[in-house]
Amino acid sequence: MRREAIIRPSNNGNRYELTSPTVMPKAAGFLWNQKMMIQITCRGYATAQFMQPEPSKYAHAPNIEAKTFMQPEQNYYTHHPGRFVYIKDLETGKLFSAPYEPVRAPADRFVFSVGKTDVAWSVENLGIRVEMAMGLPTHDVVELWTIRVTNISGRPRTISVTPYFPIGYMSWMNQSAEWNPELVGIVASCVTPYQKAEDYFKNKYLKDKTYFICETPPDSWEANQEAFEGEGGLHCPSALQLPQLSGSDARYETPTAAVQYLLSLGPGEEREYRFIFGPAYDEAEVREMKNRYLSKQAFLRTAAEYAAYMERGRGCLYIETPDKDLDNFVNNWLPRQVYYHGDVNRLTTDPQTRNYLQDNMGMNYIKPEVSRKAFLTALSQQRPDGSMPDGIILVEGAQLKYINQVPHTDHCVWLPVTLELYLSETGDYSLLEEYVQTKKDNFTVFERLCRAMDWLLKARDERGLSYIAQGDWCDPMNMVGYRGKGVSGWLTLATAHALNLWADVCEHEGKKNLAKRYRDGADECNSAANKYLWDGDWFARGITDDNVVFGVKKDPKAASGSIPNPGPS
Amino acid sequence: MRREAIIRPSNNGNRYELTSPTVMPKAAGFLWNQKMMIQITCRGYATAQFMQPEPSKYAHAPNIEAKTFMQPEQNYYTHHPGRFVYIKDLETGKLFSAPYEPVRAPADRFVFSVGKTDVAWSVENLGIRVEMAMGLPTHDVVELWTIRVTNISGRPRTISVTPYFPIGYMSWMNQSAEWNPELVGIVASCVTPYQKAEDYFKNKYLKDKTYFICETPPDSWEANQEAFEGEGGLHCPSALQLPQLSGSDARYETPTAAVQYLLSLGPGEEREYRFIFGPAYDEAEVREMKNRYLSKQAFLRTAAEYAAYMERGRGCLYIETPDKDLDNFVNNWLPRQVYYHGDVNRLTTDPQTRNYLQDNMGMNYIKPEVSRKAFLTALSQQRPDGSMPDGIILVEGAQLKYINQVPHTDHCVWLPVTLELYLSETGDYSLLEEYVQTKKDNFTVFERLCRAMDWLLKARDERGLSYIAQGDWCDPMNMVGYRGKGVSGWLTLATAHALNLWADVCEHEGKKNLAKRYRDGADECNSAANKYLWDGDWFARGITDDNVVFGVKKDPKAASGSIPNPGPS
Repeated sequence: MRREAIIRPSNNGNRYELTSPTVMPKAAGFLWNQKMMIQITCRGYATAQFMQPEPSKYAHAPNIEAKTFMQPEQNYYTHHPGRFVYIKDLETGKLFSAPYEPVRAPADRFVFSVGKTDVAWSVENLGIRVEMAMGLPTHDVVELWTIRVTNISGRPRTISVTPYFPIGYMSWMNQSAEWNPELVGIVASCVTPYQKAEDYFKNKYLKDKTYFICETPPDSWEANQEAFEGEGGLHCPSALQLPQLSGSDARYETPTAAVQYLLSLGPGEEREYRFIFGPAYDEAEVREMKNRYLSKQAFLRTAAEYAAYMERGRGCLYIETPDKDLDNFVNNWLPRQVYYHGDVNRLTTDPQTRNYLQDNMGMNYIKPEVSRKAFLTALSQQRPDGSMPDGIILVEGAQLKYINQVPHTDHCVWLPVTLELYLSETGDYSLLEEYVQTKKDNFTVFERLCRAMDWLLKARDERGLSYIAQGDWCDPMNMVGYRGKGVSGWLTLATAHALNLWADVCEHEGKKNLAKRYRDGADECNSAANKYLWDGDWFARGITDDNVVFGVKKDPKAASGSIPNPGPS
Repeated sequence: MRREAIIRPSNNGNRYELTSPTVMPKAAGFLWNQKMMIQITCRGYATAQFMQPEPSKYAHAPNIEAKTFMQPEQNYYTHHPGRFVYIKDLETGKLFSAPYEPVRAPADRFVFSVGKTDVAWSVENLGIRVEMAMGLPTHDVVELWTIRVTNISGRPRTISVTPYFPIGYMSWMNQSAEWNPELVGIVASCVTPYQKAEDYFKNKYLKDKTYFICETPPDSWEANQEAFEGEGGLHCPSALQLPQLSGSDARYETPTAAVQYLLSLGPGEEREYRFIFGPAYDEAEVREMKNRYLSKQAFLRTAAEYAAYMERGRGCLYIETPDKDLDNFVNNWLPRQVYYHGDVNRLTTDPQTRNYLQDNMGMNYIKPEVSRKAFLTALSQQRPDGSMPDGIILVEGAQLKYINQVPHTDHCVWLPVTLELYLSETGDYSLLEEYVQTKKDNFTVFERLCRAMDWLLKARDERGLSYIAQGDWCDPMNMVGYRGKGVSGWLTLATAHALNLWADVCEHEGKKNLAKRYRDGADECNSAANKYLWDGDWFARGITDDNVVFGVKKDPKAASGSIPNPGPS
């Protein structure tokens, strides 16, 4: 006999289920469209961002959070943004919350079910089943929530159902929230902080409202975070000790969105509620979103549209092997991950050049026309000397932000690597003749690749090793070559690989001389690496500005941590 | 009969006591020295900053917090940094925490007692009294904590005492914490994030360690936040359900500092513990701090030194009136507040010019030599045209940050206002003859004041009203005159006041012509204000770039919120 798996595929591989909120507490699902992304954990903590055009939030931390890249290991804590439903047995006073936070009551049954087009839970506790499901529309920034409550206790029950969607500390400058009877929901408002006049104009049309709108009017509501939580704490909010929510506004106070339904349910009886949660510029926009999305029919129609959108990311590969888990991974989940990256470019207005090209490599197997366009977009920002900038600007007026102000020397390497995949997949060699205009010059793709390869050949020292500047693709190396002399072992070998790939294309195009030139260059790189970096057992990581070979066995710094490590690129 | 006051002076006015943690939940005390400041609430939440030279933290939020000015209304939440002690009755399993957070158990007796040189609590619950007290040294960045536990139940008791000093999310780049047996405490380490090579050098000598060191070796310890909290939550940590703390390190995980003492206490028996908590560059510095501070004798000596330091801020005024509360305010607490502001300049390397001068106004009544020096420092940054910059740089290499890049036009006004107080208090007119060298020119204080007043006279429009640019002292006005035409009613009148004050000084110095010139200027300003801004009932707030008079009764914008309000200056 086998124990029920804690994590398992379901629905023919189209979903993954996790049956514990504690075994993998950070396990999460995510949904996206081209304007937003939301990641939500099995326990109900959520991180959502939308583009306007820079990434913004509509549910905030309890303090003033720094704007930073998406953390690879997101930290969670009691007041982290999330989506929750409190259930209270009005006869016994017992309380739990779905999916798990903030009450953390052990459930009789817990299923976190991540689909390709929705994220859902089914939680049973105190004889009540709570089903929660979230979907997104294809083009708008709004979460569509269904919450179904079923009496599975076999006897009549009286309970309160309290969806709680914290909004957090919106702004130190101005924040408020109130019940809007016409919209049947809570609308929170803020002013994104600024003090310079120029920032006033930048912020003027930001969506500074967050709304939580109900299809079914609740019995009571609460818009004030402190009034909701009280001395009880989020695991046992004071507001839930009273007959109903107090209906307080937030005025220069932290907003929240909590609404309460008081229910008497016969055995087997259920109730279904729908809510929408998202950002808006003004009440008119909230009204529009409500009219467009907040009904059973609209939820169904939107889900079908979104499923079609996801289906367009299915990819070109389908396998059947004896290993069903491998099939499931390759047929269902890998293309989805690849589609996400190619579809939204990490929701930034200035992706790192390397990431942008890599994300679009995968897109060759889903929508090659997207890869083609991204490749041309990247090339349209090539510098006059053939090098590539550290980030690719995707939105007019966007700026290269901090990480893209750090000079890395590997970006050109990714051009032939990306191109090779496109050409292998499409055979569309006509791309090479396409002219690409930058702000400074006008060359064909073929010419631009030659210029990039020539730059790589030139960006080497007298030994033939590639300069590292403040980094190759491996961020940790930013203190070894910033004075312009240090070299990278990885980049020297990667340059050789790129040159060989490009030599293949030159040959295919009948440019024998060019092919030879780049192949000779590749040989030079490889020889230099063998001569100066081979340590008997492995290649050195590089040589610093001060001519110290590092990443070799006898190098004490390789293990000492003196080389800073800013994490994965 | 009168109820015991919830808030009351004690110890002859030298302390203030609050007897409830819930009536004024944000009530706080603060301590400072010239390198650090800590504000701690009655419930135990703490905000501490130290200068290196920019403000930094050694106890962090659970997420990546933005660097911002000290919020006037600090927001608190479960995982906010704080200093706590859990007490568990090992016979009954009952738990409370002092001072109040995170368990929030209602105490039998609660006293939060804020002194001028320490912050203390006495909390009684479950028959146990917990006394906590925090002091600071005069010159170092470290908190000195005493925790005394007394069995007041009249019977033998077995309890665990668990000081819990959360360290928070130190860095996404690298963070860890471990028990250090030699130092007898927890040392957490991080790398302040950077990616640019130039920031590496800026960060190189930052105090990236946080330590919590015990005078008395504990029975067990915990350095890993998640391991401490577990599924129980901070109100009921999982670690406190076990016989002892697990002794886990934090490795790329969120650090914490928790140590546990298992005690058997006879009736009336007590134990006293001392701890130090602060930042350090390396373990050698931790060792040095431990040797310097962590003993009963050192605590006493340090407290005496710190009391002497505070005593130097007593001020020159002492009153005895029939109103004892007024006496207490004027004799004890007002000078302390004033001393704080003049002593540390809001712990910034670039205070706003207005704030810097205002903070030093008060210092005239405490240490006029400090005011004198600050006045000269400010004047040494006067611009060649006589105007003052928006912030005063106090540390070489510091930069004017965001708020000080917003052009305000009132800074010159504060020069004669500040000077007048200094002269009235000291009679030291020799200051006027002192030469002050800027990067560009060299003038006496008298000449510099004339230049500043001339600039104020010039910075007016054809009607004689003072330009407002992006703001006068009232921040909200930054959208009315940014195009260079809008004028300020307040600033026009303030200019008149400043000119008159300066005319008095000119007269005192026998400069009749100058006195007349500035008095005439003042009259002009007042006349212009009367002519263009008097609305029958009050003065208009100003006139915008578009020649709209605002802040008058008939002005709809005065009430519409269209004038942004970034909060108090």
